[in-house]
Amino acid sequence: MNAPIIGVDWGTTNLRAFRFSDDGHVLETRRSESGVRSVENGAFEQALLSVIEDWLASDARIFISGMAGSREGWREAPYLPCPASIDALGSALIAPPARFEAWLTPGLSVAHENGMFDVMRGEETQIFGALNDAAPDLIIAPGTHSKWARVEDGCIADIHTHMTGEIFAVLKAHSILGRLMQGDAHDEPAFALGVQRGLADSALLNLLFSVRTEGLFAHVAPQALAAYLSGLLIGSEVAEGLSRRHMERDASILVIGAGEIALRYRSALALAGAERVDVINGEDAAARGLWRIAQAKGAV
Amino acid sequence: MNAPIIGVDWGTTNLRAFRFSDDGHVLETRRSESGVRSVENGAFEQALLSVIEDWLASDARIFISGMAGSREGWREAPYLPCPASIDALGSALIAPPARFEAWLTPGLSVAHENGMFDVMRGEETQIFGALNDAAPDLIIAPGTHSKWARVEDGCIADIHTHMTGEIFAVLKAHSILGRLMQGDAHDEPAFALGVQRGLADSALLNLLFSVRTEGLFAHVAPQALAAYLSGLLIGSEVAEGLSRRHMERDASILVIGAGEIALRYRSALALAGAERVDVINGEDAAARGLWRIAQAKGAV
Repeated sequence: MNAPIIGVDWGTTNLRAFRFSDDGHVLETRRSESGVRSVENGAFEQALLSVIEDWLASDARIFISGMAGSREGWREAPYLPCPASIDALGSALIAPPARFEAWLTPGLSVAHENGMFDVMRGEETQIFGALNDAAPDLIIAPGTHSKWARVEDGCIADIHTHMTGEIFAVLKAHSILGRLMQGDAHDEPAFALGVQRGLADSALLNLLFSVRTEGLFAHVAPQALAAYLSGLLIGSEVAEGLSRRHMERDASILVIGAGEIALRYRSALALAGAERVDVINGEDAAARGLWRIAQAKGAV
Repeated sequence: MNAPIIGVDWGTTNLRAFRFSDDGHVLETRRSESGVRSVENGAFEQALLSVIEDWLASDARIFISGMAGSREGWREAPYLPCPASIDALGSALIAPPARFEAWLTPGLSVAHENGMFDVMRGEETQIFGALNDAAPDLIIAPGTHSKWARVEDGCIADIHTHMTGEIFAVLKAHSILGRLMQGDAHDEPAFALGVQRGLADSALLNLLFSVRTEGLFAHVAPQALAAYLSGLLIGSEVAEGLSRRHMERDASILVIGAGEIALRYRSALALAGAERVDVINGEDAAARGLWRIAQAKGAV
């Protein structure tokens, strides 16, 4: 029997741990609120043990992705430049100080022609977990910072981050737009109206003010304004992302996400005319990616 | 001798009062933090008296612009549709309940072809105060909500609001980008870099993430990141506004503002290639506009 393999997707605000069978199936999943930001005084080892101590055999190996490998995390696993393969990732794992064998996955960086950089940390593992033999033309991992990635020859070749989720959250919580809203229930007509306007017009600083005027003139109900804002932002993101690549309507797009957020991106992509959109659950993608990183490291 | 005329520019967060001479010169200006939002239980009359009671002769007339005439203000002076002349404004003044003669100026609204609305309240008075015989092609009143207006035949014909100032403030105070910043001192190279990127690329949700990566890779110092963000946003606003009108380089642009913010817009417009930019102080424009509204009402 091989040494037990454990995978950990350790982000800023939460942690998900996977216990694998010898052949890479997830036997058990645990979820915790012990995100990197909640760890005090560098007590990462204890934070992890509090979730999975009973899984640890003496020869267990733990593969960790996400912000635990950032500068503010357990130990920094420096960004690997794109294009990057999963083998390159497996060769660049960093061991944090611990009483057990653990490996932190590096994030990826890319330098764009216009002098700007982009990065991801955690999503690379989901992407490698989501890939099948036929790579999609484009991969989108929505979230606080929504990542758009392109895969070429099995490598993650390009990254663009869109701050969609965070902009939505700060505007809802702290701006005049949020004060007009009642709740944040989904409202498909208001969401679709926002998406269509976001797709049609790139003047986002102006578009955002329409949340106020649509509320002021009672065209969109206070209960639907959050969905309208969400549509404006996701529509703008989709327009930014698709125009960058001059994507054809029949390009294949894979969305890594779950629940409401995945539905919203699927809906916005459909309104943008994208005809081939698949969705994969982010937790499943992370687990499979962590297993593949263990394979790349030669651990299994 | 005519009845004394008093002008009040009464916004959300502050109030400026002007005592005029018989021929329209400002004899005295008072500034107060008694913005509309700070007035409790509808005590607008008392709030105003606390600033200018000693100016009030029995026959004084007070002309008020700004949010005091909004739904959340003293009494609502409904939006007047564009195109609107100063005479139309003077005919639509609304008297709030008060022991003295006072008049609230309506805001302006516009319905755009794409189904969206836009509004201003207070800036219309500044704009009419700023106009000389030769109207500029474009007027910009920067601020929390930056207003771009077009004047035709002496009427305010079109309005576009950009949420630039508010987006900057909420991102600086409440987002991951703000946590990377140290202070908000102006830094011209970082500001100009942001402006140039904002002008060159309309993908704002993606551009904003460069505040993080420029900080992460130490290309922009933490002390200069706020200026860089300000540049990205103002550059994006200028690109949105100029592309909307297909403005020629020799179009005349009037910026209504003062101090640092006016300098930043002048700098961004210069980087965008605008060759004819004038700046007028917003307080002077408000005072002159209030006087002209009193004239339009036939009070002087």
